[in-house]
Amino acid sequence: MSYNLLKGKRGIIFGALNSASIAWKVAERAVAEGAEIVLTNTPISLRMGELNDLAERLNAPVIAADATSVEDLENLIDKAMEHFGGKIDFVLHSVGMSPNVRKNIPYPELNYTFLDKTLDISAISFHKVMQVLYNKQAMNEWGSIVALTYLAAQRTFIGYGDMADAKALLESIARSFGAIFGKEHKVRVNTISQSPTPTTAGKGIAGMESMLNFANAMSPLGNASADECADYCVTLFSDLTRKVTMQNLYHDGGFSSMGLNPDVFTYLTKE
Amino acid sequence: MSYNLLKGKRGIIFGALNSASIAWKVAERAVAEGAEIVLTNTPISLRMGELNDLAERLNAPVIAADATSVEDLENLIDKAMEHFGGKIDFVLHSVGMSPNVRKNIPYPELNYTFLDKTLDISAISFHKVMQVLYNKQAMNEWGSIVALTYLAAQRTFIGYGDMADAKALLESIARSFGAIFGKEHKVRVNTISQSPTPTTAGKGIAGMESMLNFANAMSPLGNASADECADYCVTLFSDLTRKVTMQNLYHDGGFSSMGLNPDVFTYLTKE
Amino acid sequence: MSYNLLKGKRGIIFGALNSASIAWKVAERAVAEGAEIVLTNTPISLRMGELNDLAERLNAPVIAADATSVEDLENLIDKAMEHFGGKIDFVLHSVGMSPNVRKNIPYPELNYTFLDKTLDISAISFHKVMQVLYNKQAMNEWGSIVALTYLAAQRTFIGYGDMADAKALLESIARSFGAIFGKEHKVRVNTISQSPTPTTAGKGIAGMESMLNFANAMSPLGNASADECADYCVTLFSDLTRKVTMQNLYHDGGFSSMGLNPDVFTYLTKE
Amino acid sequence: MSYNLLKGKRGIIFGALNSASIAWKVAERAVAEGAEIVLTNTPISLRMGELNDLAERLNAPVIAADATSVEDLENLIDKAMEHFGGKIDFVLHSVGMSPNVRKNIPYPELNYTFLDKTLDISAISFHKVMQVLYNKQAMNEWGSIVALTYLAAQRTFIGYGDMADAKALLESIARSFGAIFGKEHKVRVNTISQSPTPTTAGKGIAGMESMLNFANAMSPLGNASADECADYCVTLFSDLTRKVTMQNLYHDGGFSSMGLNPDVFTYLTKE
Repeated sequence: MSYNLLKGKRGIIFGALNSASIAWKVAERAVAEGAEIVLTNTPISLRMGELNDLAERLNAPVIAADATSVEDLENLIDKAMEHFGGKIDFVLHSVGMSPNVRKNIPYPELNYTFLDKTLDISAISFHKVMQVLYNKQAMNEWGSIVALTYLAAQRTFIGYGDMADAKALLESIARSFGAIFGKEHKVRVNTISQSPTPTTAGKGIAGMESMLNFANAMSPLGNASADECADYCVTLFSDLTRKVTMQNLYHDGGFSSMGLNPDVFTYLTKE
Repeated sequence: MSYNLLKGKRGIIFGALNSASIAWKVAERAVAEGAEIVLTNTPISLRMGELNDLAERLNAPVIAADATSVEDLENLIDKAMEHFGGKIDFVLHSVGMSPNVRKNIPYPELNYTFLDKTLDISAISFHKVMQVLYNKQAMNEWGSIVALTYLAAQRTFIGYGDMADAKALLESIARSFGAIFGKEHKVRVNTISQSPTPTTAGKGIAGMESMLNFANAMSPLGNASADECADYCVTLFSDLTRKVTMQNLYHDGGFSSMGLNPDVFTYLTKE
Repeated sequence: MSYNLLKGKRGIIFGALNSASIAWKVAERAVAEGAEIVLTNTPISLRMGELNDLAERLNAPVIAADATSVEDLENLIDKAMEHFGGKIDFVLHSVGMSPNVRKNIPYPELNYTFLDKTLDISAISFHKVMQVLYNKQAMNEWGSIVALTYLAAQRTFIGYGDMADAKALLESIARSFGAIFGKEHKVRVNTISQSPTPTTAGKGIAGMESMLNFANAMSPLGNASADECADYCVTLFSDLTRKVTMQNLYHDGGFSSMGLNPDVFTYLTKE
Repeated sequence: MSYNLLKGKRGIIFGALNSASIAWKVAERAVAEGAEIVLTNTPISLRMGELNDLAERLNAPVIAADATSVEDLENLIDKAMEHFGGKIDFVLHSVGMSPNVRKNIPYPELNYTFLDKTLDISAISFHKVMQVLYNKQAMNEWGSIVALTYLAAQRTFIGYGDMADAKALLESIARSFGAIFGKEHKVRVNTISQSPTPTTAGKGIAGMESMLNFANAMSPLGNASADECADYCVTLFSDLTRKVTMQNLYHDGGFSSMGLNPDVFTYLTKE
C-alpha cells in the first residue's frame, strides 16, 4: 500500500542493520512512499549486516559513516547531497549502543569510559548529525528530523541501565536543536518513543523478553511493531505534520499512559 | 494535494461552524483524502453557521445533535451508520464552550451552574460520544477518535478560565476511555493540543490576540493554523498511526517545549 | 517526635473519617507540630465515623460541612475564623467519592448523574473551598492549600473509573486557582499524588488489593503510608516550602518514575 | 528560626563558592537545623572563594574534591565518614558548568570536547558521587540525596545551551540511580528544579537578567531565592519526606505550571 506521501522527498536513514531493524523498515516504507534515500551505518555494521541487499532493492546508495565522527558525517552529507542533486528533506537517527549494558555491568557500577561511549554513540551523535546538516545548510525548509527513543528516558526500567540516561540526553538534544533549527530554517526535530522492539540491538538487553511481554500485556493495543513504527515515521516525514516539533511522541500501543492493566496479572500467572 | 490517505474510510465531524473552524478544515481535508463524512453540530449552530454550504460541497449529510444529549447522539450514530451502510472509522470532537469565559466571570468567582455547563459541553460530551459509539459497537477495528484540546490543561493561561479545567477533564476522558476502547475493540483515542487558533470560539476569550501573538513569537515554527491542524488530523485518522493511543499530541510549532525564546521580547517591545 | 514546624499556624482539615484516613493522620501530625485546627466532614460522615474522639483529643472543633455546598463552606470558614480569632494558614482537602465506582459501573457505561456527583464531590468542591476562602479573604499570606490526588489523573488504572477524571479535574483546579491565589494573596496551592492507601474510601475500589500490592512491588521504597503522607503534608504547610506552588507532588515511594521493577514478577508469581 | 529538623544528621554539601551560592545557603540552613556537615568543592574554587570563612563559622571541615574524579570522591567520602564517625544522611549536589556557554558558543556549533566537560562536570559527576557512596555503603537508611537542576531540562530556554542537555542527563541519573538506591538501601534521590537564581554560576549565562525578570513576572509567587531553596532542601533531607524519591521537584514560584501570566506584558513594556 502506498500513498505517495513522500513523493519527491529525499532522506538519510541511519542505523539499518538487518530486516529486524526499525531503520530497515523505515527505509522500505519511505521508498514505497515515493522517497529517494541514502542508507548509512558504521563500517563494521556494513560488514556484519545485509544492508547491501536492501540498498540494491531500494536503489539507494550506502555511504559508510560512524555517526560519532564529524568528519565521517561531513563526507556523508556531502555525498548524499551530491547523489540527490539537492538538499535533504528527512533524516532518521536510529543509533544506540551501550557497552555497559552489553557487558552486563550493573548501573551503580557503570564504567565511565563506557558511559562516555554510550552517550556519544546514542545521543551526542544526534547533535553531530544536526550540526553537520546545519553548518552545510543541507536541510530543505520544512524538513523533518526524527530520532528513535524509549520511555526509559522518563521512567526507570531496571536492566535498561545507562541507555536510559542516553535516551534522556537524546531527547533533550532534540528539543534544544529543534528550537534553533525551527526558528532559523523551519526544520522540525522530534523523537519517537517506541515500544520495546525485538531488534538485534534490543536483544542485547538483559530481561528483554519479560520486558516485551510485560509491555505487551500492559498496552491496550499491544506493542507497536517495527513495521508500524515505519508507518508512523512516514507521517512525520510528510508535509502533513509541519507544525509538530520538539516533541517526544509515544508510539507504544498506549503503554506510556497506563498505570495498571489487569491483563498483566493474567500474563504473569501464565508464565 | 491529496494522498488518498482516508480512502474508503467514514467519519463523523463534530463542531464545524464556519470556514474559520478547525472542524471545517478537517471536513474538507478528510473528504479530499477520500473519506466519506457526516457533519454534525447543535441545532443552534446549524442555524447560525454556514454548514449547509460545506455539506453540499462535500456531499455530506448534516445531522443535528447536541453533543451533551445521549439521545441526540444515539440518533446521530444510527443515522450515520445507516447513511454509510456500515461502521465508522474516525471521529473528530471539536466542541467546547464556557459560559463563565463568555461572561467574563473571573476564575475565582466561577458560577457553578455555568461550570457544570462548561464541563458537560467541553468534556463530558466526549465521553457521551464514545459511550454511544461503544454501546452501539459503531466503530470499526483500528478506528481513530480525536478531540481537540489546548495546553491550558497543563499550564495556566490566565484568562482561559474554566476551559483549562474542562480541557484537563477532556484529556483524562480520552485516556480512560482509550484504555478500554483499545483493549476491547482496537480503537485508538487521542487529543491534539493545538496552538491558539483564531476561530469564532477562540475569539470569545479575553486577551485572545495577545495570547496568539505571544504564542507565535515563542514558537520556533510559529503558531499552527487550522489548515495545518486538519493535515495533522488526517494522519491520525489514517492507518499509519495505528499504535498511537491515549496520547495528548502537541501541534503547536514547538510552543509546549519552549521555556523562553528571546523573540518574545522583540515582539513585546514592538507592541 | 515534633519539630514545632506549624507553631502558631491554623488550619482546616477536610475528610477525616476514622483512624485509617489520611486526613486523620494529618490532623494528628499538624497538632503535634504546634498547629491549631478545625475538623470538618459531611454530617453523614460525622455520624458514621469516630471524628468526635479525635476532635476531643486534639482539642479541635468539628464543624459539619458538605464540601459541595457553598453555603455550608461559608458557615465553616466564618466559624473557623471566629474560633481561631484570625485568618487561616493551611487547608487540607481530602475529599473524594464516585457513585459509579461504588456501584461497579464499568467506565464506558458511566451514569452521567453519578459522574456529575463524582466531579462535584471530588474536584469542584476544591474550587468551592477556595472560592469561599478567596471571597472572605480568609487565608493569611504564604498560606498553603493542599489536596490529595492519585496518579490515575495521568495514567489509566483500569478499575479506578471516573475517579481518574475527577482527579485530573482536581489537579487542574489546583493550578488554575493557584495562579490567581499566588499572584493576589501569596497563597500556594498544590496536590499530593499519594500511593494507593488502604483507607475506607480506597477499599471501595474494585481490585484495590492487587493495585496496592502491584504498586508496592513496583515502588523502590514501597508504598507510602497514611502516616508518611501526613509527615509530607506538614512540610507543605510549613514556611519551608513557600515557593512551591501549582505542583502535583508524587509521594509514592518512586512508583510514578518507574517503568519496570522486576520485583513485580516475583510478587506476581507468588500470588 | 530553627526547628531542629536535621538534628543528629550528617551531610555533605557540594558546590558552595560564596554567599550567593545556593549550596552556601543550604550549608547554613542545614547546620542551623542541627546537622553536622562537610563542605567540598574543587581545589580551584576553594582558592577563589570564601569557603573557609563559612567552614569556620559552621564548624565544618572543607575537603577538596573534583566531583569528576572518582579518586577524589573516594577520599572525600572516607574522610567525611571518619570525621562524622559514621555514615552519611544527606548529600547536596550543586555542581554545574559549561565551557560552551562560558565561551558563548552557539548551540548548533557546540565544541564536543567542551560538551563532554559540561556533561562530566554537571551530570556524570552526580553518578560518580552516588557510585562512591554506594560502593562504600556510606549512606544511612532513609538517607536523602538531592541535586539542583533547572526547567531547561524540559523546555528550551534559548541561551542556556548545552546546560539544558546536562540537566536532562542529571535528572535521568537521579531516577536511574534512585531506583536502585531505593530498593537496596532505602535511600532517596531527587532533583530540585529551582528558579533562575543570581548566583556566580548563573551570571555566566547570556541574557541571564532578562531570563530572571521574565521568570519573575511569569511566576505567580515570583522567583524562588537561594535562601528559600535552602529551606526547601532542608525538608527533603528531613525524615518528613521519606517516601519522595526519583522526583524532579519544581521550586519556582509556579513558573513551570504557567502558560501565560499577563504580568509579563506589563514587565516587558516597562523595559
